[in-house]
Amino acid sequence: MLDNRNPREWLHLKRTVRFGETDAAGVVHFLQVFKWCHEAWEESLEIYGIVLQDVFPAPPIYARQLDVALPVVHCEANYFKPLSVRDSINIELYPEKINDCSFILRFKFKKNGEQVGMTNIKHVSINSITREKCFLSKSINLWLEESILNL
Amino acid sequence: MLDNRNPREWLHLKRTVRFGETDAAGVVHFLQVFKWCHEAWEESLEIYGIVLQDVFPAPPIYARQLDVALPVVHCEANYFKPLSVRDSINIELYPEKINDCSFILRFKFKKNGEQVGMTNIKHVSINSITREKCFLSKSINLWLEESILNL
Amino acid sequence: MLDNRNPREWLHLKRTVRFGETDAAGVVHFLQVFKWCHEAWEESLEIYGIVLQDVFPAPPIYARQLDVALPVVHCEANYFKPLSVRDSINIELYPEKINDCSFILRFKFKKNGEQVGMTNIKHVSINSITREKCFLSKSINLWLEESILNL
Amino acid sequence: MLDNRNPREWLHLKRTVRFGETDAAGVVHFLQVFKWCHEAWEESLEIYGIVLQDVFPAPPIYARQLDVALPVVHCEANYFKPLSVRDSINIELYPEKINDCSFILRFKFKKNGEQVGMTNIKHVSINSITREKCFLSKSINLWLEESILNL
Repeated sequence: MLDNRNPREWLHLKRTVRFGETDAAGVVHFLQVFKWCHEAWEESLEIYGIVLQDVFPAPPIYARQLDVALPVVHCEANYFKPLSVRDSINIELYPEKINDCSFILRFKFKKNGEQVGMTNIKHVSINSITREKCFLSKSINLWLEESILNL
Repeated sequence: MLDNRNPREWLHLKRTVRFGETDAAGVVHFLQVFKWCHEAWEESLEIYGIVLQDVFPAPPIYARQLDVALPVVHCEANYFKPLSVRDSINIELYPEKINDCSFILRFKFKKNGEQVGMTNIKHVSINSITREKCFLSKSINLWLEESILNL
Repeated sequence: MLDNRNPREWLHLKRTVRFGETDAAGVVHFLQVFKWCHEAWEESLEIYGIVLQDVFPAPPIYARQLDVALPVVHCEANYFKPLSVRDSINIELYPEKINDCSFILRFKFKKNGEQVGMTNIKHVSINSITREKCFLSKSINLWLEESILNL
Repeated sequence: MLDNRNPREWLHLKRTVRFGETDAAGVVHFLQVFKWCHEAWEESLEIYGIVLQDVFPAPPIYARQLDVALPVVHCEANYFKPLSVRDSINIELYPEKINDCSFILRFKFKKNGEQVGMTNIKHVSINSITREKCFLSKSINLWLEESILNL
């Protein structure tokens, strides 16, 4: 799909810690990293060339009903260092295909080159009406394959 | 619908400030009060006797498509005192019907009897497919009328 | 501390799914369960008899500086069933002490008696200035011991 | 401070709507716009040249206690159009100094050139210990003045 592109383009992302992500201990509240992961993944899909509304649902006025949903069935995080407002975070995304219906997104978070945390998030492809397992869409498959092959 | 009930039952609510609602300044992050308002409103509707899935959308597996949505078109808040973890907040809800299609929810927040903040939130009733304005549902109308009459 | 009390009083909690916790797929957004866990834990400590401001930081105006912080160093979740607005969730909390400095909170989420998800969250006790590991406070130790002994 | 720079550099910002910001109605949950505002403001200060940890608190390990806090005392929003995942939003920030202690941040949100919403947020400068009103810091004053003069 994207000849000659280096997957780092869509697998290496950045963000800055915002004040609203901290709690009264002064550091990032633990569950915020999962928000970062999902947002980084969306950004990755976009950079790769996927239209997000083909993957994530939008309201009825857009006259489009997605057949497939990608719920999270497992996630976990390890925290090595506290983060606070203004910290600049490099996010490295390592996708792994499990089978025709599911994949894991592994994330490493780095600050000034040092790893400060990691997460992994497992998604399963389901029919959005029946919620039965189904095959991953072609576009997600391509993104997975090109991400893995070239790393 | 609910003979002999005092609307305070469904218009006077409570909550406790949680740690994840604070920011690094040690106090409640400003936008959290809007979360409290929506949650207090949902609780009010439930206590009154409305089934929330008749008002707020649920996923397709529940085989139910709502015709009407109630988006917020305006909201505002005033903050008088800082709040921190463990503070016990009394929430007073004063609904006001504007016309056949819209209403305002006014909230007062009190801590130990002292008002610490206030908000108001205007909702409009729309067709969930076309997004054209439409009449409020019968159940919302009843909740509004019984809330206002008896205050 | 609390003679003759059954730990179920402070380890069995409830909540209702709120509209703002859902995403455009119609179901609870995955990371919200971690918010539920922390809030359920805070509620558990309160019911047990701990003053939350002895455990979680509040702003300087309260003239109190906590020596100890309890950051999360690991968390994970498994999701078995989708949840949507209005679902009533029973939360069972199973604390486990790891050593003098750390503990794990295990949560089971049930809807109509059926388990819909589970999480575990590991906290470590640190000095809030130096961020070096330190002993758990007396009150957290008591809560852990009475929770575990009597289950 | 920043000769020859056009304030549009730090007052015109962008963001993309993320899936986790939507609710089960398929559109952005109303209170998320306030998160966007605060994050856009932080980004604006950074682009202008302010170190965020001089304005927003960080934890004790950074050995720095801020004398001044900038709590929100009022905010409001108007919503003109629904937004959904992947929408690209232009954010225009119009700051206004009220007096030596307070200012209003006015935001316009545009999608494809059309205004979809607006907010304003009033901040007051206070002593972070006593919570008495105090003068705005020099850096915030400069940011306000250069933002207003050149618009």
